[in-house]
Amino acid sequence: MKLGAIEAGGTKFVLAVGNDQGEILEKEVIPTEHPDITVPKVISFFKDKGIERLGLGGFGPIDINETSKTYGQLQKTPKTDWVDYPLGAALKEGLGVPVKIDTDVNVAAMSEAKWGNATDVDTCLYITVGTGIGAGAYFHGQTLKGLSHSEMGHIKVRRHPDDTYEGTCPYHGDCLEGIAAGPSLEKRWGKKGHELAEDDQVWEMEAFYLAQALTSYIYILSPERIIMGGGVMKQKQLFPLIRRKVLEMLNGYVSSPYLTEQEIDNYIVFPGLTDEAGVKGALYLAMKE
Amino acid sequence: MKLGAIEAGGTKFVLAVGNDQGEILEKEVIPTEHPDITVPKVISFFKDKGIERLGLGGFGPIDINETSKTYGQLQKTPKTDWVDYPLGAALKEGLGVPVKIDTDVNVAAMSEAKWGNATDVDTCLYITVGTGIGAGAYFHGQTLKGLSHSEMGHIKVRRHPDDTYEGTCPYHGDCLEGIAAGPSLEKRWGKKGHELAEDDQVWEMEAFYLAQALTSYIYILSPERIIMGGGVMKQKQLFPLIRRKVLEMLNGYVSSPYLTEQEIDNYIVFPGLTDEAGVKGALYLAMKE
Repeated sequence: MKLGAIEAGGTKFVLAVGNDQGEILEKEVIPTEHPDITVPKVISFFKDKGIERLGLGGFGPIDINETSKTYGQLQKTPKTDWVDYPLGAALKEGLGVPVKIDTDVNVAAMSEAKWGNATDVDTCLYITVGTGIGAGAYFHGQTLKGLSHSEMGHIKVRRHPDDTYEGTCPYHGDCLEGIAAGPSLEKRWGKKGHELAEDDQVWEMEAFYLAQALTSYIYILSPERIIMGGGVMKQKQLFPLIRRKVLEMLNGYVSSPYLTEQEIDNYIVFPGLTDEAGVKGALYLAMKE
Repeated sequence: MKLGAIEAGGTKFVLAVGNDQGEILEKEVIPTEHPDITVPKVISFFKDKGIERLGLGGFGPIDINETSKTYGQLQKTPKTDWVDYPLGAALKEGLGVPVKIDTDVNVAAMSEAKWGNATDVDTCLYITVGTGIGAGAYFHGQTLKGLSHSEMGHIKVRRHPDDTYEGTCPYHGDCLEGIAAGPSLEKRWGKKGHELAEDDQVWEMEAFYLAQALTSYIYILSPERIIMGGGVMKQKQLFPLIRRKVLEMLNGYVSSPYLTEQEIDNYIVFPGLTDEAGVKGALYLAMKE
């Protein structure tokens, strides 16, 4: 059986035809332009491929509630051309197949659970730290959704005593994304993250913020694995710093063999899938129907 | 069909026999003493009642992972007599029936979803603010569990600028529970909560802390309803303060009709069930098998 998969990002759409074994058979990448340009290209790519269902992991905010009248509709995204655009409905109408929609980070969590670094557990959290900070959870075979999808990058954490930077988030100023995503690193220190690789102070502060967030996610969600990806996490020196600070912050409160010095390296990990995580997660979404 | 239900609290055990329609037929309350005293009393109460299953909502930390070898075993609770006590196994052996175990706050969330103030939604969060702060989530028919159960009261929130109190939590000092549970109110202000009812400063600060926590829970979990119970929440003046501050903190970021001035009163609510919430939740746990 052939299935369609889309990773719909803010700068590009990755389109793929796969099968129900999770194999990608054909792939194409197109830029994210105005929906009147991008969506017809998407439909044209899939039109004669014989797909029976389509899965999409998308940028947000987007309505991922399957029982909602506006399922698959973009909400007030900073990409103004796409605000209120009914992406799910347009694809369903254009292709005549069922369309399943979830967020990019939720399908990345699914993808890691199916093929990546969380295949041995029932619950995992995937976090991306890049241009923004977002996270998706996959618990016992379901992505986390309720009123809407998670917006975990917008929690507040306590400020580092040496940090006076006011934060970049247009909604919340110094929320986690406002002080720890890539753009805030560049504005605070005057250079891009990869140019700061040797500056210990930068990564100590970054780890202080990310470890606080992880500690809150552990207290609230209790995932069995945390996977950290995105551009900022390519600075691999962050991993040992974050792991140590998470253990310090938890201070032994949560009983688990994972939350020990011996096992923390197997608890907070990098992604097992690389570039195809998003589109493979979207394929898995289509497979699961 | 007859079912057993136990609300196992730090000071008392509520024991009930109910039926598969959710009706309580018989109830008894016994004090929480040493397990060698309390558990035989529990077994003796249920022994000849003809129950086919038993549900238990318990104080924690407790192992609630059904696939674990130590399912139903207490962990390092401050109640030292109970540390590592295999409560689930002892009841299963003593009564010869299947025993299902979850936390007190998780079964309270289930109970509110089944019979209380969250019957019209698929996802809800129940928070108790009393001697401690704990929360349970019930999402799409499952309570939230992973590595362990949630410990939502132990997240850190930013400090109020006028608050110099150091916090009561033995593990984390000024985590949420350390600065916003009942004992911290009494230590900070020198009086019990109900004696401070007229002091606006007390409740403004309390609402500042609880609203920050709720905002994080919304970003991370996205529940469709938040129910707040426990001794501190009997100060009803907290509800409008918390609701207003949550809207201010979210600052319009999460799109939902609930998160508006018109509808927030139906989003952050008091419990629909009173004293029987815990034991009815335990009964529902037994019903669901």
